[in-house]
Amino acid sequence: MAVDFSERLRDIQRAKRTAVCIGLDPDPRRLPEHLAQGLDPAAAVVAFNRAVIEATAPIAAAYKLNLAFFEALGAGGWNAIEATLRAMPEDVLTIADGKRGDIGHSANFYARAVFELQGFDACTVSGYMGRDSVTPFLDYEGRAAFLLARTSNPGGADFQDLVCDGEPLFERVVRTAAAWEAGRPGTLGFVAGAVDDRPLRRIRTAAPVAPLLIPGVGAQGGDARAVMRAAGEGPVLVNSTRSIIYASGAPDFAEAAAREAEALRVLLEAARP
Amino acid sequence: MAVDFSERLRDIQRAKRTAVCIGLDPDPRRLPEHLAQGLDPAAAVVAFNRAVIEATAPIAAAYKLNLAFFEALGAGGWNAIEATLRAMPEDVLTIADGKRGDIGHSANFYARAVFELQGFDACTVSGYMGRDSVTPFLDYEGRAAFLLARTSNPGGADFQDLVCDGEPLFERVVRTAAAWEAGRPGTLGFVAGAVDDRPLRRIRTAAPVAPLLIPGVGAQGGDARAVMRAAGEGPVLVNSTRSIIYASGAPDFAEAAAREAEALRVLLEAARP
Repeated sequence: MAVDFSERLRDIQRAKRTAVCIGLDPDPRRLPEHLAQGLDPAAAVVAFNRAVIEATAPIAAAYKLNLAFFEALGAGGWNAIEATLRAMPEDVLTIADGKRGDIGHSANFYARAVFELQGFDACTVSGYMGRDSVTPFLDYEGRAAFLLARTSNPGGADFQDLVCDGEPLFERVVRTAAAWEAGRPGTLGFVAGAVDDRPLRRIRTAAPVAPLLIPGVGAQGGDARAVMRAAGEGPVLVNSTRSIIYASGAPDFAEAAAREAEALRVLLEAARP
Repeated sequence: MAVDFSERLRDIQRAKRTAVCIGLDPDPRRLPEHLAQGLDPAAAVVAFNRAVIEATAPIAAAYKLNLAFFEALGAGGWNAIEATLRAMPEDVLTIADGKRGDIGHSANFYARAVFELQGFDACTVSGYMGRDSVTPFLDYEGRAAFLLARTSNPGGADFQDLVCDGEPLFERVVRTAAAWEAGRPGTLGFVAGAVDDRPLRRIRTAAPVAPLLIPGVGAQGGDARAVMRAAGEGPVLVNSTRSIIYASGAPDFAEAAAREAEALRVLLEAARP
């Protein structure tokens, strides 16, 4: 397998024909009842994640663990991350979705935690604090940081769409950050929401070959075609979370998750330009 | 003690005559050798924090725990945070410096982790993702979120100083976010670096009574006077980390920390407008 993160992603996608990233946001209150019974919340989360991973692994290119949900488990959260990562097969990538962003000295410690201790392949990073908050994550060969560009949440437009020196802030972030990757190819990607495909197209133009992590496409996938066209030829991961992992609350939750993931996979592959 | 975070801060500062916030960024490789010997890194960090807190508590208005350093301890990091918080006396405030920033649903879980599980009084938050990434932290009466405005790290100017619609981004962030606090007084503060006092003055003008968390003033305090003048009448915490906690690597490290903290306290009190 190639060393470069982008290359690894391409290899996996070529072999498995999938752009699907499955988000693991395990809320103890939303787990299937039969599964959670008798287990403490962290153990229930691990059992849930394992079942989802086992059922969906052939369909998934990557899994994204939302660190907020693990931190809310308290002391058991760290071990739940480790146990979840141990359940991952070889041919998927793992993303720590923590959106860290701090001064260089602190960023070094965050990078060490997600890459060296936990062993994730990639993580999400917030760039508000500028270059020294991002570059420590680019120092790991074969790993990658997905920098927040344009997000699709309700507040995404509050600052990201502000026009700064003639261009939207999110585009400025992408163009500025692209230069930070110099000498460390394949280590920098971007998070680009799927709600509107116009920002996505601008991000792809500013960063033609960067991996894009695209949340916001549900299994219903109304805009999957527009998203895949806008994302162009560069490597793409399309994340879906709740519509997959909570597709059923019954004992068939893992099979239901696999069905939803497969539906999304087919939709995205059909929509490849 | 008053319920509102701002009021609590004012009460503490009135009683103890201090604006000093002590940053706890415990790097296992920088702890005094005699202390770390025979202990695992997490236990050494807790022993170090406890000694620093015991020696400096009469001088400190608040302690800021940098979560990056605790996450880099692995599974023991969570317990090290809890043990450190248990060592805090009643008359100080505690800040979780994690700079979280995610969509509303995830932000709820981050807020639950720092306020409900760990029991911090405040935390730092990054606002790049807009309103729904910040408001969940404002739903806790008596607690507060310090939103990143203008930071003093090398990359601080990369995006924060961009002129958006006629004003620097950091100022736009402050003015926009100030409106999100409506109905939840005293819950929103801002992080404003001390390197240059002009941004600080603009932040204070945009948010006249918000608590400000100001990193970047060393014990040498060259610009303490300018900073305190710029911060004006509203509540202020001035953070110093390495020049206090690493003032000595010898067995007298806690006393040395107290000396440095006291020097900063005196400097800041003399500089109050």
